[in-house]
This record gives sequence, structure tokens and C-alpha cells, in this order.
Amino acid sequence: MKCTKCGQPAVINMRQHRLGLCADHFVEWVPQQVQRAIEKYDMFTPEDRVLIAVSGGKDSLSLWDILLRLGYSVEGIYINLGIPHDSYSDVSQQKVEAFAAAHDTPFRVVNVKREYGESIPEVARRKRGRSPCSTCGLVKRHILNEVTLREGFGVLATGHNLDDEAAVLFQNSLHWATGYLARQAPVLPASHAGLARKVKPLIRLYEREMAAYALVRGIDYIYEECPFSRGATTLFYKELLDQLEAESPGAKQQYYLEFLRARADGRLLPADAGKPVLNQCQKCGQPTTAPGTCSFCRLWDVEEAAHEDSNGDS
Amino acid sequence: MKCTKCGQPAVINMRQHRLGLCADHFVEWVPQQVQRAIEKYDMFTPEDRVLIAVSGGKDSLSLWDILLRLGYSVEGIYINLGIPHDSYSDVSQQKVEAFAAAHDTPFRVVNVKREYGESIPEVARRKRGRSPCSTCGLVKRHILNEVTLREGFGVLATGHNLDDEAAVLFQNSLHWATGYLARQAPVLPASHAGLARKVKPLIRLYEREMAAYALVRGIDYIYEECPFSRGATTLFYKELLDQLEAESPGAKQQYYLEFLRARADGRLLPADAGKPVLNQCQKCGQPTTAPGTCSFCRLWDVEEAAHEDSNGDS
Repeated sequence: MKCTKCGQPAVINMRQHRLGLCADHFVEWVPQQVQRAIEKYDMFTPEDRVLIAVSGGKDSLSLWDILLRLGYSVEGIYINLGIPHDSYSDVSQQKVEAFAAAHDTPFRVVNVKREYGESIPEVARRKRGRSPCSTCGLVKRHILNEVTLREGFGVLATGHNLDDEAAVLFQNSLHWATGYLARQAPVLPASHAGLARKVKPLIRLYEREMAAYALVRGIDYIYEECPFSRGATTLFYKELLDQLEAESPGAKQQYYLEFLRARADGRLLPADAGKPVLNQCQKCGQPTTAPGTCSFCRLWDVEEAAHEDSNGDS
Repeated sequence: MKCTKCGQPAVINMRQHRLGLCADHFVEWVPQQVQRAIEKYDMFTPEDRVLIAVSGGKDSLSLWDILLRLGYSVEGIYINLGIPHDSYSDVSQQKVEAFAAAHDTPFRVVNVKREYGESIPEVARRKRGRSPCSTCGLVKRHILNEVTLREGFGVLATGHNLDDEAAVLFQNSLHWATGYLARQAPVLPASHAGLARKVKPLIRLYEREMAAYALVRGIDYIYEECPFSRGATTLFYKELLDQLEAESPGAKQQYYLEFLRARADGRLLPADAGKPVLNQCQKCGQPTTAPGTCSFCRLWDVEEAAHEDSNGDS
């Protein structure tokens, strides 16, 4: 296989685009795809200050690299979740620190245990009804939203790639979770006071392309998936979608992009779908669908936890 | 594994229902499921004359058997498509004839080649742009609709099982074909003059349950899939859904039934979705979305075919 642009040996063959590229052209092409997504969905401009949520994995570190190369004003945030297995969280943090140092670019760390008294596995153990993954999602959403607003960033960027989005879409459509279907989007606007604008600039790129980009650019990332994600259903859904993609190159991309189109055209969901009533949390002030205190604040409420546990036991 | 009802050895384990049944209880249970579907979706009553489309396969012959056992007034129709491979159509017809003779129940045959001058493979070959499968679907829909109305039946029943419906749903949701999503249903009402009422009484039953039913009841059916269906994408989608089902028993059923619920609740698809404007075909008088002559009548229009071919070549 040769590079479609220069005829040199290709490092990657992207069947869905009928495009093979050498290393040099590939690392040029990826930021072009990101730039196209940023413009198509009006994500942000060079004037915006962008906060990027980095985990130490290939997607978020590559996104950081790409946004810097594209000349955007971007800073990182790493949330240390306190996952102890093989020092997962600490090793991830070191990858982020090394990247930031090498690129001389600012970033901040929020250490969940230091800030709130318990790591994610600890709080999940105490709140028996909650899985570590749903606890983690809740905590990250809250902290990222809070920091983005408090530090005056215009937008929060995350490293979700096309495989991530297609797997979530697949999960939501298997259950016909129409509320989630209504809200899954490349851009979540700051539609309510206290809600930060959130964007996903990697939604045009497959996971394997992001892995190849990190490799070619020499980005040192944490290879291991989070130990809690083993056997996760999203990984299973990704496998099924990979079978579809193998059978019909471009199927994953078409699946996700056609969903966005059908919804935007008003063909898929009724007009009022997915607009939850938001209240203000009585403790932290963030928007919440709950009537009084938000789920995040209730996580740290030890009395309520004891109450829930006794209910669980009875 | 023992029968949940009597403790005898079970012939089938239905994990999605946490139910194992012996042969006797299984052949009692299947018609109960069909009766539940007939009532839940108001398909028909014992007063209705039901025409059942039979292919000679396990699903339609079993459905015929079940409806007779349930005491419905039902007659069969077999469409001989003229598929020559291993005498596929003729062998299928013999299975239908044998079943009807054994049950002393009326049925009629429409032979496509005798009636219209060409078999399905022949017409598909002439109309180069059309696959045999889409030609076959079009021809069957037209003839079944026409005969149901002409012979004064209240309703047409087909043997689509839950796997069939889930695979079609999967295909339509992979492409977000919202028009098809709006119209896929256990009951298609006679919503327009010239449209027969159509029902699918097997939608609560998995394919493997129908195969087991035919086996236990000693129904002699044609085992082979249609030779044209080899490598069909619906078979591939069924495989993917089977993987889902293996991972999570009941997933296929939940996927399909939850879709029906979300749509009925108005959470999925806008209110006016899937209501095409229907015209009357200038040749046969059947309803059609086409402006002048319907696709079925155009199939047999040799002049137009020649025209299409010359376009295709140019």
C-alpha cells in the first residue's frame, strides 16, 4: 500500500475514505479532520480559551497535541481518580505531566481523594448501588463543568472519538433511550446558567487512527484501559461495530453521522425531546435534574449513604 | 435441564424467559404466545377470515398449524417464484401442498411465471438495476395484497418472527431510515383504499423457538434458505444480534419491543413520520407512492426496461 498523496509507503490504510497515507501526510491529515469538525459544528475559534480534559490516554493527549498544532489557546485538566490497580491513576498523571512539560503548556490536576476525602473506588464501595464507572462519570462531569466555568474557559473539549460516540449511540438505540438519543451531540451548548459548553473535536476520527497518530507523533500515553472497564458493555458494543465496519468500511461513520443528520432534520425525534427541566442544586449551585441536592453532592453525603445502605440491606 | 412446569426433561431452554419446557408443554406454550400477540395488537378475531402467506419454511407452516389449532378461520397462499436452483420453488410448493392435504385446509397457488410470463430470476436479470431479493419482495407484496382484497379476506398474516423483525429494525436503525422505522409494525392497518390489513402473529417468538416447534410438531418444511439469500446483509445482522443475545439473554426481544413502546409513546419519531402520500396506480389501481404507474406494473413493462438498460450502459 502506497501513500495516496506522494507514493511513499503508507503507514495506514483508511478503507472508509479509500485513503492510504505515509507518516508525514497522515500527521498532516489528522489535524485537518479535526479542524473540519471544529468548523462544521461551530465548536470554538482561536479567540476562545479551551480547557481540555486529559486522561493520559491516546485520544486526549493526541487531541491536546493537535489543538496546539492548530494554534488554539488550550490548557489541560487531569482528574486523578485514585484508581490504585498498578498505580493506574498515578501513572496516567505522569504521562500527562510529561506531555505538558515537553510542550511547555499549562495544566491543572484535581485529585478527587485530596479534594473530597475519598477516591472513586472508595466512594463506589461505600455507595453500594453505584458502579465505579457511573460514579466516575458523575464525578468527572461535575468537576470538569465546575472548573471550566470557575476558571473562565469558553469551552471544554474531550477526546471522544468516533468509535466512542458510535458505541454510545449503539447502546442508546439498543435500549431506545430517547432522552439520551436527544442529547448525544458533538457540541453541548451552555444552554442553561451553570452549564459549560462542551465539544468533541475527534468525532470524525476512528480509534485506530488516533492510536496511529499517537504512535507516529511519539506521544507517550497509557496503553492500559482503566481496570474497571474490563468486560464493560461499551467494549462489547465496539467489537460488534468493528465487525460491521469490517463487513462494510465506513459503516460506523455513516451510522453516527447519519444519526446526527436525521435528528437535525427533525426526522428522528419529536421536537421537544431531551429537554429536561433543570433545577439548581441546593448545595453546590450546579444545574441538576434532581429536585433538591444534585447526585454529585449526594455522593459525599455520608448520612444519606448510611440510610441507602440500610435500605439496601432490609 | 428440566421442564419448569412438570419436571420432565426439557427439549428447549429459553433463557430470556428463564423457562425450560418439555415437548408437550412447549407445543402448548407456543400457541399461547401467538394468542397473546394477536390480542395485544388487536390483529384479528375468530370471526375474521385470515389469509396466510406460506413459503414452505418453518415459520409460515408453523404459523398455519398454530392458527388452525387456535381455531381461527385460515387459508393459505403460496407464491411460486420460479427459483430453479435445486428446484427450490417446486420443492417448497410440495411442502405446502403436503401440509394443506394433511390438515385438509384450503390454499391457493400463484405461479409468477405462469401469471406474468417471467420467473423472479428472469425478471431480475432483465431489470439489471434490481436485485432478485428486492424484485421478490415487490412481487410478493403486490400479489398478496391483491389476493387478500380480491378474495375478501379481512387480514393477511405472515410468518415473520422476532429475529426477522429485530434484524430489519437493526438495519433500519443502522441507516436511520426513519420512514421505514415509522412503518415497521406488528399490524399494518388497511389505512388506505386498496391496502389490505397485514399482521405478524409470531413477533413474540425467536427463530430457534419456531424451528423447535416445527420439529416437535413433525412439520415437514424446506430447510434450505432461499439460494439468493446467501450472504444477505440481514443474515449478517441476525448473527450480530445473536451475539448480543448470547451476552444478554432477552436483548433481541427487549430491543424490538422497547422500540414499539418508545414509538407508541411518542418519544421516538415525530408525529407525522412515515405517512407517505399514496396515489392510485394508473394500470392496476393499487396504492403506490409513485406518481403514475406502480413499481410492480413497471416491472413487466418491457419498453421501460430496455430504456433503463440503455441508461445503465451509458
